[in-house]
Amino acid sequence: MNLNIALLPGDGIGPEVLAQAVKCLQAVEETFNHQFIYREAVVGAIAIDRKGNPLPDTTLNLCKEADAVLFGAIGDPKYDNDPNAKVRPEQGLLKLRKELGLFANIRPVKVFPSLIQNSPLKQEVIDGTDFTIYRELTGGIYFGQKHLNEDGTVASDLCEYSEQEISRIAHLAFKAAKNRRNKLTLVDKANVLESSRLWRKVVTKIGESYPDVQLEYMFVDNAAMQIILNPSQFDVILTENMFGDIISDEGSVIGGSIGLLASASAGEDSAMFEPIHGSYPQAKAQDIANPIASILSAAMLLEHFGLYEEAMAVREAVDKSLKKGVVTPDLDSKSQYGTNQVGDFVAENI
Amino acid sequence: MNLNIALLPGDGIGPEVLAQAVKCLQAVEETFNHQFIYREAVVGAIAIDRKGNPLPDTTLNLCKEADAVLFGAIGDPKYDNDPNAKVRPEQGLLKLRKELGLFANIRPVKVFPSLIQNSPLKQEVIDGTDFTIYRELTGGIYFGQKHLNEDGTVASDLCEYSEQEISRIAHLAFKAAKNRRNKLTLVDKANVLESSRLWRKVVTKIGESYPDVQLEYMFVDNAAMQIILNPSQFDVILTENMFGDIISDEGSVIGGSIGLLASASAGEDSAMFEPIHGSYPQAKAQDIANPIASILSAAMLLEHFGLYEEAMAVREAVDKSLKKGVVTPDLDSKSQYGTNQVGDFVAENI
Ligand SMILES: CC(C)[C@H](C(=O)O)[C@@H](O)C(=O)O
Ligand SMILES: CC(C)[C@H](C(=O)O)[C@@H](O)C(=O)O
Repeated sequence: MNLNIALLPGDGIGPEVLAQAVKCLQAVEETFNHQFIYREAVVGAIAIDRKGNPLPDTTLNLCKEADAVLFGAIGDPKYDNDPNAKVRPEQGLLKLRKELGLFANIRPVKVFPSLIQNSPLKQEVIDGTDFTIYRELTGGIYFGQKHLNEDGTVASDLCEYSEQEISRIAHLAFKAAKNRRNKLTLVDKANVLESSRLWRKVVTKIGESYPDVQLEYMFVDNAAMQIILNPSQFDVILTENMFGDIISDEGSVIGGSIGLLASASAGEDSAMFEPIHGSYPQAKAQDIANPIASILSAAMLLEHFGLYEEAMAVREAVDKSLKKGVVTPDLDSKSQYGTNQVGDFVAENI
Repeated sequence: MNLNIALLPGDGIGPEVLAQAVKCLQAVEETFNHQFIYREAVVGAIAIDRKGNPLPDTTLNLCKEADAVLFGAIGDPKYDNDPNAKVRPEQGLLKLRKELGLFANIRPVKVFPSLIQNSPLKQEVIDGTDFTIYRELTGGIYFGQKHLNEDGTVASDLCEYSEQEISRIAHLAFKAAKNRRNKLTLVDKANVLESSRLWRKVVTKIGESYPDVQLEYMFVDNAAMQIILNPSQFDVILTENMFGDIISDEGSVIGGSIGLLASASAGEDSAMFEPIHGSYPQAKAQDIANPIASILSAAMLLEHFGLYEEAMAVREAVDKSLKKGVVTPDLDSKSQYGTNQVGDFVAENI
């Protein structure tokens, strides 16, 4: 297969982890006789520094032309505490999601048996955890109208949803549940928010077309508890943008390391794959960042194009590195392996 | 001391747990020679059923005239899944908070040593956890304008904050930090939300008047992870209404039981005390609901009026019940004690 892949390394540890994912994709090309073309572009803080824009047109066009985007990470603390900053790295990511129409962020949460002892949670609590979060990614309070009054004393953000925005991701989530354990949990705050009540109405209606799937409703505050108290109760979680941001990062602690979790963002015509961890600037260029999440993002990319055997080869190589202890220090404080060595090991084992 | 206490049992298990708190307050009256006057009123689903209004005027007036309000719980599932319901129990609670000006919800999160094994988290993760959440309670997306278009296909909620709303709770939180371990963590989403950027600006400015307090900023998605990964890093957490709802319920799992956690809601002229658990309708009238959170709410009420010795007597009696295993089944599945017996035991030991 020929694939055109846009590489967006971004900020912080983004470039170094993405490089390992590319190594693995190259190993897949060789082993399975595919041809992938990689084209790289800047995004985020580095794009602001170089071009004054967190998502330059050249980058956006490259992504639009590509079959898929492989993303590193975004964000730089120098922008975070400056309430007056006019451009921010995150705007690049948000605009990219919007422009590519990536309305569904899909995050699998699974426990790696060989790392079960790394979890802050007790083994009996997390045993059997295997769920996927469908987070709406191009609507809600992230993209609603923002306002700051003239003297800078009143600020607001609008959380708005339309039936159509809810409906398209709901269908994806129901379909996913059908292929899994037939359970869908809608997380909302319908006892307070008008937008949540619309979610409940639309999702309930759509549920009628998926009679095999058991639909359950959960308030977001309760969900924040249940994900820790009893994570194995979940199969597919469906939720809006802001709740999804919080709940999915919370879910990422279950497995013991955020350095292992990948995500896919899907739209009608585009797809992007990225680790769920951030740019982790403190670890930048120290060869300590965990490349597994980025490598598993590449595996999700392969699956997206139906290359299941190839994806499985990547996953098995990752499992091997975990079992053999060829891991970065975040997973084993005594480990001597760096980002590059872990990437090499996984690539060689494909 | 003479105190006028408004009792609002509310829905579900509210009445039965509140009754235990009152038992304990009566024991305090006797032992310490105080005189408390209790006046009861309906709120929530029961108030809708009886008077068609989740917060009848008589209830609101009773609360306004009282020195403090002791609250049970609110909510009934028959309203949750009806997107067309015009009145909802929760509206009663929200209106009460707004009308009494209860802008600060204060939730202490602490681990009871005798219950450390009940936590879903490993002991080494939660050891030393002792933080307090200051959640803004009368602003933000809970109270901003709601909108549903005519054909019911687009819904929105506005999250709005003013400098003054942020400032008054920020001062409370900084003062609390000064009396504790001098650390304040502001939880927001300033990389995305205009309102969060205002929070950051205002809180940073106020921080200059509290030079001893170390001010730290954390994005809410990261906070959702950190609360589980490393809860002992926190001293005082300050956040807006919606994030506070999620984060504080999440924090409540640390101690192993939400049935143990109390909260205070404070304003200029009023104060309300309530367990953080909900109405738990499945457990209603079965004599299995844990009354400790409600009893500890009463202890917070006593502290609010400077009755520290009295509050301590309540807390010590609670500790005794936990140590002796006089607890409801949620804490010990083999326990034979019911709600009433636990309440009696605590009251007798005051
Ligand atoms: C960087 C930030 C804007 C982003 C988000 O909030 O969506 C990130 O936290 C994520 O979840 O991908
Ligand atoms: C019942 C509900 C409206 C309420 C809230 O969201 O504030 C509750 O969850 C709480 O935290 O007190």
